[in-house]
Amino acid sequence: MGEFELIRRYFQREHTVPNPAVALGIGDDCALLQPAPGMQLAISCDMLVEGRHFFADVDPEALGHKALAVNLSDLAASGARPLAFTLALSLPRADEAWLAAFARGLFALADAHGCTLMGGDTTRGPLNLCLTVFGEVPTGQALLRSGGRPGDELWVSGTLGDARLALEALQGRRTVAPELLPAARQRLERPTPRVALGLALRGIATAAMDLSDGLVGDLRHLLQASRCGARLDAATLAELPATRDAALDAPTRLGLVLGGGDDYELLFSASPAQRTAVLAAGSAAGVALTCIGQLEAESGLRVVDRQGQALATSRYTSFDHFA
Amino acid sequence: MGEFELIRRYFQREHTVPNPAVALGIGDDCALLQPAPGMQLAISCDMLVEGRHFFADVDPEALGHKALAVNLSDLAASGARPLAFTLALSLPRADEAWLAAFARGLFALADAHGCTLMGGDTTRGPLNLCLTVFGEVPTGQALLRSGGRPGDELWVSGTLGDARLALEALQGRRTVAPELLPAARQRLERPTPRVALGLALRGIATAAMDLSDGLVGDLRHLLQASRCGARLDAATLAELPATRDAALDAPTRLGLVLGGGDDYELLFSASPAQRTAVLAAGSAAGVALTCIGQLEAESGLRVVDRQGQALATSRYTSFDHFA
Repeated sequence: MGEFELIRRYFQREHTVPNPAVALGIGDDCALLQPAPGMQLAISCDMLVEGRHFFADVDPEALGHKALAVNLSDLAASGARPLAFTLALSLPRADEAWLAAFARGLFALADAHGCTLMGGDTTRGPLNLCLTVFGEVPTGQALLRSGGRPGDELWVSGTLGDARLALEALQGRRTVAPELLPAARQRLERPTPRVALGLALRGIATAAMDLSDGLVGDLRHLLQASRCGARLDAATLAELPATRDAALDAPTRLGLVLGGGDDYELLFSASPAQRTAVLAAGSAAGVALTCIGQLEAESGLRVVDRQGQALATSRYTSFDHFA
Repeated sequence: MGEFELIRRYFQREHTVPNPAVALGIGDDCALLQPAPGMQLAISCDMLVEGRHFFADVDPEALGHKALAVNLSDLAASGARPLAFTLALSLPRADEAWLAAFARGLFALADAHGCTLMGGDTTRGPLNLCLTVFGEVPTGQALLRSGGRPGDELWVSGTLGDARLALEALQGRRTVAPELLPAARQRLERPTPRVALGLALRGIATAAMDLSDGLVGDLRHLLQASRCGARLDAATLAELPATRDAALDAPTRLGLVLGGGDDYELLFSASPAQRTAVLAAGSAAGVALTCIGQLEAESGLRVVDRQGQALATSRYTSFDHFA
């Protein structure tokens, strides 16, 4: 199977969902995207490398899902509606079963969001996936990291820490009850991008970002962009993991949440006056929302226990590929 | 140096050329691109892998140039004006001298085309570069591979075959006079994307594509898309390499042109009635154009010598990563 046959067989297919934004898809020197009038294009790009972002023996269908999910999560954080994406793929060999499963996982999620594969590149080399995703948002309405203000409440969607728990269990660094591992592993390998929530939060959230490298590290980026600090409630954070193993005490759960990673939930701020609107957005999007604290004028991050004591957060550093 | 410091130091800089299309650049979950009204976005994506697309000891400044050049060449082939690009980078280590040189080569070419780095990703792993580039073209005016018609003349820009010659010399598969190698190597390592020519050919060329994998293989894609065949003049093709080593006889030069690769010149078709306009476009863009043959109703590709005899072209297969 040659390069062009590989593309034709696994990636060049009739759209199952017609997409008026894609004026020209796979097969020419460039693809052509036609944004609707009054729209800006939100663009995000993620590269996934074997051994860094996934294990060599990962289920290829789950990998296809996750590769697109992490990009859709960035669109969600910007309040953008997914339109299309490109896929560049470096493969050690053209393994047909692997490619078929990868494409199945990829397109199942793409179709669920009406997001069309419009171009890309394939080459031989160490396994590497690079997706660039395009969404649309009315000009000036994108959710940014920089709009948070002191007094705003801080919210997160869904549950946090379970992906990190699964990672540590799979690496043999932590023991989890066998009956609880599959659900946590699902969170690690098949994250759910909160696209509907991102759209529902336009005009409500003052700042937003997605959680991919751990709450403490990610929140610091939002605080820096919004030029303020934050106070988080430790007891609330400790309740965020869905996995309820008896061996996981509150400090352990808190650690999984603060230093986690791979959550792909939304972190956002909103005025307390918008609390009803926030909860309605979560309800409409079908995802639980939790208020975890608030933004403050004083810079820095304070995680506070029930006695009002600030806990040390310096050990919950964000994942950094080069640190 | 951590991941975010690496991005800040080498890739996040003040624009030297203001770019109204980039509403938001590096630093948020998504970048925001604002296409002008009436424009389509032309999008292309290329992945470059160490050992496949470049040698491990390549000059990083040349690599920065080439990584963007091959993408700009796709925009040129579509008649699109460059706007912006994303860069995903997998690096074995954060080597400051390497990064500084790579960024220098990348931004020199980007600035020359007013093309802004608007986002990307960095990770640790085997050296891999993935660029996705965005250009604009008035709706409906993009040059496609599919518009060629029997009777159209076939043209190429610049010189062909020199990059392939340099590659074979560097691999020790061919001997080239030492004084001729630097110019050929320049063609391999610092290709010139024909952006101005692509813009000048809007409304003139009936079909266009860029030459990256070799003339025979690439032309077959254009013929397939345009549903016709072609006749090329062997004697004209043999004159296309710029390198004039006495050891390179006409059949050898012909082989370098037909099976070459890495030329990044434009191949396009135009009605004979447009010959004056074609030559004026080349002149305005400052690049020589050569008519190498014409499209025919009969399918297939015929390379014909002075006696009208068709030469075998089957051995000039295009580069294929998985064949």
